[in-house]
Amino acid sequence: MLEVYSWPTPNGHKIHIMLEECGLPYRIHPIDIGSGAQFDPDFLAISPNNKIPALRDPDGPDGAPISLFESGAILLYLAGKTGFGLPTDTRGKYEVLQWLMFQMGGVGPMLGQAHHFRLYAPEKLPYAIERYTNEAKRLYGVINKRLARSTYLGGPAYSVADIATFPWLRSWKNQGVEMNDYPHLKGWFDEIAKRPAVLRGLAAFEDKPRAPLSDAARDVMFGARQLAQR
Amino acid sequence: MLEVYSWPTPNGHKIHIMLEECGLPYRIHPIDIGSGAQFDPDFLAISPNNKIPALRDPDGPDGAPISLFESGAILLYLAGKTGFGLPTDTRGKYEVLQWLMFQMGGVGPMLGQAHHFRLYAPEKLPYAIERYTNEAKRLYGVINKRLARSTYLGGPAYSVADIATFPWLRSWKNQGVEMNDYPHLKGWFDEIAKRPAVLRGLAAFEDKPRAPLSDAARDVMFGARQLAQR
Repeated sequence: MLEVYSWPTPNGHKIHIMLEECGLPYRIHPIDIGSGAQFDPDFLAISPNNKIPALRDPDGPDGAPISLFESGAILLYLAGKTGFGLPTDTRGKYEVLQWLMFQMGGVGPMLGQAHHFRLYAPEKLPYAIERYTNEAKRLYGVINKRLARSTYLGGPAYSVADIATFPWLRSWKNQGVEMNDYPHLKGWFDEIAKRPAVLRGLAAFEDKPRAPLSDAARDVMFGARQLAQR
Repeated sequence: MLEVYSWPTPNGHKIHIMLEECGLPYRIHPIDIGSGAQFDPDFLAISPNNKIPALRDPDGPDGAPISLFESGAILLYLAGKTGFGLPTDTRGKYEVLQWLMFQMGGVGPMLGQAHHFRLYAPEKLPYAIERYTNEAKRLYGVINKRLARSTYLGGPAYSVADIATFPWLRSWKNQGVEMNDYPHLKGWFDEIAKRPAVLRGLAAFEDKPRAPLSDAARDVMFGARQLAQR
């Protein structure tokens, strides 16, 4: 049984979806990032960057337990464990890896900043809102162009690059983007959204109570508490 | 001969350093991101996200050429090609991968935003400056804690995780950080800075003329030109 330390955010959903795609049994430990659970010493021991998701596999590579943080590394680990989501041929593998890195270094961080300045920042800062909304549109354009020539982001087969990117694009409205402006992206998105494993992964937290984001939670997530951990 | 499409930025230097560490022969093609060279169709064909670095290896995995973008994917490709910088045992490999992903998803994007709002943005926005300066300090703290218990970021051996992170920390002053506040990080940094391959990698552009960043260049890098490409 894999232990998943997570929360229903885009980075959390990457792992919930991947585990469902792989058919691996797992148990979710909710890390309520609005209440500061990401600062618990037990969680920091496996996730030193105090972010979800993290994974603990009691049956690691050499039979001993392994714990991992960073969604991109967890996806690659699960792909390595099961053979799902990463081509075995060297060329295909690096083609997927570059689009996974594009998600990790661009799509995730920049759409996250768009969410922050459009939704969560206490002040509305036009320069920052425009900067990240434009970057969101640019990234959607890059993905749309890619999907005009490739069935999936990483090549002809569904892969960890798609699993990593899809959950971030569900919030296109919050990013100031109109998904219909990107028809190749939209076709790909709609197809992935119908996959049974994706539906199950996105439902992973349905049985777990969650409060709406309070002012106190915003302070935990974006305020001085973050820095106090160093 | 490997062809490197690059510029002397932190992400460019990752690859220059890695190539020097691996002892691979390479030729640099400067992509002047201030003059808009990243939008040339020839460059976009190998780097669809219009960012440096990109790599072309005429001797790819199956003997045919391969081109790659995203610095993290290029580092893994070069590690796979040479055996340098990534452990061969499964546990060690994923330990390095999680710290490489931490650089790709956190250190790079967030320190990049600190640079932007502290140095390049036309307005000084206190909220954004504080947000990213605090995040820079938080990230330095995470690295410092890790290096208190581990000789290198990814474990006992120097790896692609160190090579990816080091170039971003050279600009600590521009990130509002005092490196001396992080003694374990500083010891690691100073040791890496002395490596002959690192010195050669950082000197990769010394023979190539570069103009200081002009207002026109800022417009190319941060203005509407970015979005016009979609």
